[in-house]
Amino acid sequence: MDLDEVFNPSSVVVVGASSDERKMGYQCVKSLVEAFDGEIYVVNPRVRRILGIDAYKSVKQIPGSVDLAIIVVPSSVVLPVVQECAEKGVKGAVIITGGFKEASAAERDASMDGELLQERLAALAEDAGMKIIGPNTFGFVNVGVINASFSPVFNGLRKGRIAMVGQSGGVCHIFAYMAMNEGIGLSKVVGLGNRCNVEFCDILEYLEEDDETDTIAMHIEGIDEPRKLMDAARRVAKRKPVVAYKVGRTRAVERAALSHTGSMAGEYKLYDAAFRQSGVVTVNSCEELFDAAKILSLCQDCLPKGRRVAIISTQAGPGIILTDECVSGGLQLARFSEETEKKLKRLLPPLTIRENPVDMAFIRDAALWLEVVRTVSADDGVDALIIFNLYHPSFLLPPEEIVDARRSYGKPLIMCTSFPHELMLKEKIKLEEGGVPVYGTPERGAKALVTLMRYAEMKRRTKGG
Amino acid sequence: MDLDEVFNPSSVVVVGASSDERKMGYQCVKSLVEAFDGEIYVVNPRVRRILGIDAYKSVKQIPGSVDLAIIVVPSSVVLPVVQECAEKGVKGAVIITGGFKEASAAERDASMDGELLQERLAALAEDAGMKIIGPNTFGFVNVGVINASFSPVFNGLRKGRIAMVGQSGGVCHIFAYMAMNEGIGLSKVVGLGNRCNVEFCDILEYLEEDDETDTIAMHIEGIDEPRKLMDAARRVAKRKPVVAYKVGRTRAVERAALSHTGSMAGEYKLYDAAFRQSGVVTVNSCEELFDAAKILSLCQDCLPKGRRVAIISTQAGPGIILTDECVSGGLQLARFSEETEKKLKRLLPPLTIRENPVDMAFIRDAALWLEVVRTVSADDGVDALIIFNLYHPSFLLPPEEIVDARRSYGKPLIMCTSFPHELMLKEKIKLEEGGVPVYGTPERGAKALVTLMRYAEMKRRTKGG
Repeated sequence: MDLDEVFNPSSVVVVGASSDERKMGYQCVKSLVEAFDGEIYVVNPRVRRILGIDAYKSVKQIPGSVDLAIIVVPSSVVLPVVQECAEKGVKGAVIITGGFKEASAAERDASMDGELLQERLAALAEDAGMKIIGPNTFGFVNVGVINASFSPVFNGLRKGRIAMVGQSGGVCHIFAYMAMNEGIGLSKVVGLGNRCNVEFCDILEYLEEDDETDTIAMHIEGIDEPRKLMDAARRVAKRKPVVAYKVGRTRAVERAALSHTGSMAGEYKLYDAAFRQSGVVTVNSCEELFDAAKILSLCQDCLPKGRRVAIISTQAGPGIILTDECVSGGLQLARFSEETEKKLKRLLPPLTIRENPVDMAFIRDAALWLEVVRTVSADDGVDALIIFNLYHPSFLLPPEEIVDARRSYGKPLIMCTSFPHELMLKEKIKLEEGGVPVYGTPERGAKALVTLMRYAEMKRRTKGG
Repeated sequence: MDLDEVFNPSSVVVVGASSDERKMGYQCVKSLVEAFDGEIYVVNPRVRRILGIDAYKSVKQIPGSVDLAIIVVPSSVVLPVVQECAEKGVKGAVIITGGFKEASAAERDASMDGELLQERLAALAEDAGMKIIGPNTFGFVNVGVINASFSPVFNGLRKGRIAMVGQSGGVCHIFAYMAMNEGIGLSKVVGLGNRCNVEFCDILEYLEEDDETDTIAMHIEGIDEPRKLMDAARRVAKRKPVVAYKVGRTRAVERAALSHTGSMAGEYKLYDAAFRQSGVVTVNSCEELFDAAKILSLCQDCLPKGRRVAIISTQAGPGIILTDECVSGGLQLARFSEETEKKLKRLLPPLTIRENPVDMAFIRDAALWLEVVRTVSADDGVDALIIFNLYHPSFLLPPEEIVDARRSYGKPLIMCTSFPHELMLKEKIKLEEGGVPVYGTPERGAKALVTLMRYAEMKRRTKGG
């Protein structure tokens, strides 16, 4: 059996469904009811109906076939439930319940050996040929298809081309919430939790072939077989950008990580080096993970050919910040050709700075702005453009025109603007759908561009080697 | 005359007002019409009415007295206009027009000596006893009183206690837009531009006495007399937190800064050291400037007494990130007292991690959550709390109760949550009005807490010395 049947089931059962809306067993049903088109079953021996769905007393009693089980029962009964699912022919399971390897590692409860429990779960799943996401996970979302998680709020996710895979459900949530806040689409969000028999390498292989995913973001605490992950990452990164946020720079997290998903955080630096060697982009915060995934998804068809950046700004101050950030990140200020300089001098009045960084303060004419953007884009000495815009996008830099310039010249064009979010969300989405990533501050935009340049260089090295 | 009359005028004139809505001269009038309660005059010899206000041909013709002039005429006529204002008895001016010292420095136009122009402007202002914000500025906003800028969008700012003073209007905008996006209130936003006769030190002195401001954020490119700034900063920082974002880490920005507001960016490291010695908190991005100003404003009544932080999280993954960030920032994981440990063991089931960092995954009971927060807050070994919350604030951590805990124990309590912004803005504002800063990612929250701890230590050192 294949992970595809886990991510695209026709029928789903929630075992441990609840009618108490504070419980995960209720929220899981809500996630499905609001958005899943297939057959939904719920199992709870003590309740008759949940959210309008008749409850069965056990999985066995369900009349039709079931592809995927979402299991939210106490850890002591997970194994019998999985056994029952196996007998029923269920092909995959999401086990939200905790109390497995992570509980054993923390020795939180001497009466229960979580590690042993997980081993038995793995053996059972192996016998049944059943793929298990978790245990100890929030679940997963295949956007537009199924929300197999305890977070119905994810039914508000837009469909997009970035997949997020996290060891922690919490970090998956942070990433997906950012996407919702920014109007960015995602393809899949997967919380791996304790990784009973679906590891990072398995998901990477699945996502490598997933036509809906063009970029993969990962959050990793620590795993048992890092080499398998690196091998998979190296192969996948040749086809799609992979970004990794490996936590655990300090020793203080070791214990916490162990008792989270049952794995040591491991040597941060070793992971970091191994990822870079495998062609994986590494980052150091949730925000950087999101910003990097966004630029790699939107600009992979126009990777910069070098490090020479042109900066254009509606105001000098943010232009200076862009310069500072780009240069400290290893980029170079592009030197404009004589032709470009001549044209800019003709186009722009003396009060404007007509060299790179171009300061267009006081130019309040959209046609002129566009001509400058096109002139700079056409310069062979420019590998990428980054623009700071103080105003509403429609005022000087209309999304359609900017998208057109980005497409015509095939160079990455990054837009930085912190204009009040709700007043520009529509235009921001238009820009990003057209391949122009938008960032809320000049620093974030510049950092993302640095990441893109590094990725492009890594790609060139790999091809050359 | 005093800056107070600039920031709180009874009557204002826009000279160079325009009826073309793409022009700054129109936007300045719009900023006033929408929100200023005093008398508004507009001057434009070629137009009869602008936004319902009768236009005068010159400042002289205005019948009543005028406190403040907002000047948006071409640079060649700024001096005669200021002269006329002086004769009319105008007490202060905002000169938005560029083409002064910054233009000369860049040698962008040989036909005009911007430096000389600015010297003559300064002399004229000196004679007339007129305070000038600018030239080459976006203006200023005294929130709730007057928006003397070309950005009517700032009429949407909430009134608060943070003042932002920037050398660049662009950076002022980034800061104010962030405040609008986050529902954070500001007291004043001031773009100093070329600082004809109102320098950073003057504004700092004014804000020191301003009862509406409890925290000051600054953006600095470079100034001519850094010592005067440092002297003022040292004095002001004793009474109110001051945060500075000094740009110019790379040499590439030197030229750009010079031709922006006519000042060299100067040695970044010298500034940084001098600021720290003066008791000023330094940061390295717009986001950090905003995040630091927020925590310093909201938590100045409960500065932490040491570096021992307690971490509580609805999910282990973000708890691990908080640990990583706090520890790498120099904080220590608090060791709970025996009493606290005993109480947590009694309160929490085995599946929870009952040591610091406390992992409360699977606890979905608000009363229990609150009791844990109170128990940890009461521990003498804990100097500050930081909480990651995956869910809507009302689910497990109701704002009223959290604010009450923060008040009862007098320890800083930081909340991190990236829950979809529009779904929790009301609760976020409630938390922040109650002194509990809310951050969108664990990394940002932890960084802000590190800043608060550093500030508290600086305060203790200053008192001890």
